[in-house]
Amino acid sequence: MSVTAVATDQSVCAPLPVLGRDVTVPLVTGGEVTYAALDYAASAPALQRVWDDVAAYAPYYGSVHRGAGYLSQLSTDLFENSRAAVAEFLDCREADQVVFTRSTTDSLNLLAAALPAGCQVFVFETEHHASLLPWGNARVTYLDAPRTPGEAVTTLERALADRDPYGPALVCVTGASNVTGELWPVRELAAAAHAHGARIVLDAAQLAPHHPVSVKDLDVDWVAFSGHKLYAPFGSGVLAGRADWLREAEPYLAGGGASRKVARRADGGVDVEWHTTAARHEAGSPNVIGVYAIASACKALAEAGFDDLVARERYLVAKVREGLAGVPEVKVLSLFGDEAPRVGVISFVVRGWNSSHFAAALSAEYGIGVRDGLFCAHPLVRTLLGGDPQDVGECGAPDGGTTSLNAIRVSFGAGTPDEHVDRFVRAVKELVRDGARWKYRTEDGRCVPDRG
Amino acid sequence: MSVTAVATDQSVCAPLPVLGRDVTVPLVTGGEVTYAALDYAASAPALQRVWDDVAAYAPYYGSVHRGAGYLSQLSTDLFENSRAAVAEFLDCREADQVVFTRSTTDSLNLLAAALPAGCQVFVFETEHHASLLPWGNARVTYLDAPRTPGEAVTTLERALADRDPYGPALVCVTGASNVTGELWPVRELAAAAHAHGARIVLDAAQLAPHHPVSVKDLDVDWVAFSGHKLYAPFGSGVLAGRADWLREAEPYLAGGGASRKVARRADGGVDVEWHTTAARHEAGSPNVIGVYAIASACKALAEAGFDDLVARERYLVAKVREGLAGVPEVKVLSLFGDEAPRVGVISFVVRGWNSSHFAAALSAEYGIGVRDGLFCAHPLVRTLLGGDPQDVGECGAPDGGTTSLNAIRVSFGAGTPDEHVDRFVRAVKELVRDGARWKYRTEDGRCVPDRG
Repeated sequence: MSVTAVATDQSVCAPLPVLGRDVTVPLVTGGEVTYAALDYAASAPALQRVWDDVAAYAPYYGSVHRGAGYLSQLSTDLFENSRAAVAEFLDCREADQVVFTRSTTDSLNLLAAALPAGCQVFVFETEHHASLLPWGNARVTYLDAPRTPGEAVTTLERALADRDPYGPALVCVTGASNVTGELWPVRELAAAAHAHGARIVLDAAQLAPHHPVSVKDLDVDWVAFSGHKLYAPFGSGVLAGRADWLREAEPYLAGGGASRKVARRADGGVDVEWHTTAARHEAGSPNVIGVYAIASACKALAEAGFDDLVARERYLVAKVREGLAGVPEVKVLSLFGDEAPRVGVISFVVRGWNSSHFAAALSAEYGIGVRDGLFCAHPLVRTLLGGDPQDVGECGAPDGGTTSLNAIRVSFGAGTPDEHVDRFVRAVKELVRDGARWKYRTEDGRCVPDRG
Repeated sequence: MSVTAVATDQSVCAPLPVLGRDVTVPLVTGGEVTYAALDYAASAPALQRVWDDVAAYAPYYGSVHRGAGYLSQLSTDLFENSRAAVAEFLDCREADQVVFTRSTTDSLNLLAAALPAGCQVFVFETEHHASLLPWGNARVTYLDAPRTPGEAVTTLERALADRDPYGPALVCVTGASNVTGELWPVRELAAAAHAHGARIVLDAAQLAPHHPVSVKDLDVDWVAFSGHKLYAPFGSGVLAGRADWLREAEPYLAGGGASRKVARRADGGVDVEWHTTAARHEAGSPNVIGVYAIASACKALAEAGFDDLVARERYLVAKVREGLAGVPEVKVLSLFGDEAPRVGVISFVVRGWNSSHFAAALSAEYGIGVRDGLFCAHPLVRTLLGGDPQDVGECGAPDGGTTSLNAIRVSFGAGTPDEHVDRFVRAVKELVRDGARWKYRTEDGRCVPDRG
């Protein structure tokens, strides 16, 4: 996992086939090139296997739950079996519930809506906005960015021990940072939470696509993740874990599917009896295709074997980090330091460059898709960059300053071939050495080649 | 539109190609038959055109908003152009917002969360649970089932005029009943609402797939519909309409995408600046494929021409109603009577039959998929059936009673060939005349053939 651990090509498995692997895009410098999708942390391409499963199922699509027809029965089975597949993928406890949502953001908003009265929430300022912001109505304690995994644990322990009043509490923590890719000490944080009478939800949006996640082993109370980062971009997500708070909460959405029985009362109102299973929070016709796609991805990753996938990703991470380490103008953003274990998510700034222009040049001159900005983790990126950066993903900032106002993120995963990260490293070196071959300007809020 | 108005085969357009049109299913009586999907009101098959568009786009999938790569830019354009396509499909006003949700249920829950303080809600008891139930925190007046469209208008007018205190109010009404298929007098109800200082949201889940919907012409404040009933079953829905209440409301989901700027405060908390556009309520990575599928369906229906689609559907409705009218044991459920205009959604009971057994026999012996139950509209179905029915879609009720405890719904649309409704009518006649050829029993809560 360290920078020096670059394996040879032969020692790692091949990338998994993904959609779009043959797509070519035009370059401003002329010609076309295969698109290098290096923005997996935002959204990953579909696994070919996931697409094939979806395409095979699509003609058999039918309404789920209560439809009497053959395809409705088949679709209902597919939907409920997908729940079981996700529970297996996450190594859930027997009594855990798997609720299908639309995304990690949705999953955490659902849990936020299910907090018991008086519940306090503890969250590091380093989290993605999806983990930082949903707890509006609860009492939230934002914890300062730790500089080691151990400091994360002691910071949390202190905050939980000091809470007043001492009542129900929830800790929300990421498994892998969407900015630095660094792994967080989830098992230790879970132990700390439980030791202080708190519960913990794991934001596995960036972890689950890259690492095995075991609810039992990590001893977390809930896990949330998104299909679209797990090679299944069809609009579904997951909240899995303890049933009690969910069962006792008001339904997340009110409507059909969540309601077991509805009747007018004599006084003119209505009485509603809600389901107590996962359906309680899944009102409306479920996104069967999205859910099946997630189950398909879970199976494909498990069958490919996380040992191999992790080994391959370490190899790619090492390639990128070693390449960037050879460019003094590049500063890689890190909380926990060079030796910290991490997934294929690396953010950096380039001295003398506006990050948006750099990202635009990577796209226009090399066919490489990365992301620039503050990555929906504004407090963390500000802490890492220092100064008073702003979100200028729309390229509104002046060029060539010495303080970067935002950052560049390169991210990859199971579908990434060596060539993509090799091209990326070469591109960074060339851009820094030679400068961009084109000028870039803002157009409709985007940084684009200036053809004027 | 009346029972006697059966056109000839030649006078109507062909069905639009849909996925699954060649799928065959096994019959308990031996052999296989092409599946007749007659449960469109629950969920419709994808238009072939929608599937083709999704399949063509899928390799080009990329993260939307802020990704610097070519496919991210392309996907962002696709996503925002889809918003424009939906606005055009609904004939929205210039200033209207199109918010992408996951379903009609989600859209109405979003609107419910955006009601101004003290807003009263008026809803007929005849609505789908998605329209009946989301208004939990508001003061809701449930209006009794009207027996004519005119009575609906006068009932609403009286309730709005009598409200005390006289403040903000919202009317929520369906465009076409998901039980009877009957059209509601939306334009007249909108006029009544506005005359009394109220706003109105149209639940177009069952209307939009079958009829043109013009926000301007109907003069409704919002429209909600689902992709999965509009031949685009990829997990997305729409809430379109006035921006003011939405802009002033708390974000529906808290997270990235909805937040423009997030910063730690000196006191340790966080300040959040939220977007004021549709993005305010679309936190999390959007379901680009689902949204694009809706836009594709909107274009396909508009290009096919609603005049032709409506004419064809009237022809199919007439076929079914004429067929059922010839079976004295069948009672079609209706609020507004035989002459009321309706879409391709028809519910009925069969004297002497448990509806779940009847639906199971249609599936097992004829390969026809319908739905049995109370259709997430319990109060309406109870009113229509009389007595004290229960939701026994799980076939827990005794056979052969004279009071039907639930109903059977047959529904169809733009993809339905003549043969499906012809087979359905023939099947109903044969089952009533000859009885089922198999016994049926409950297994895992489903009514299935009893194979002994």
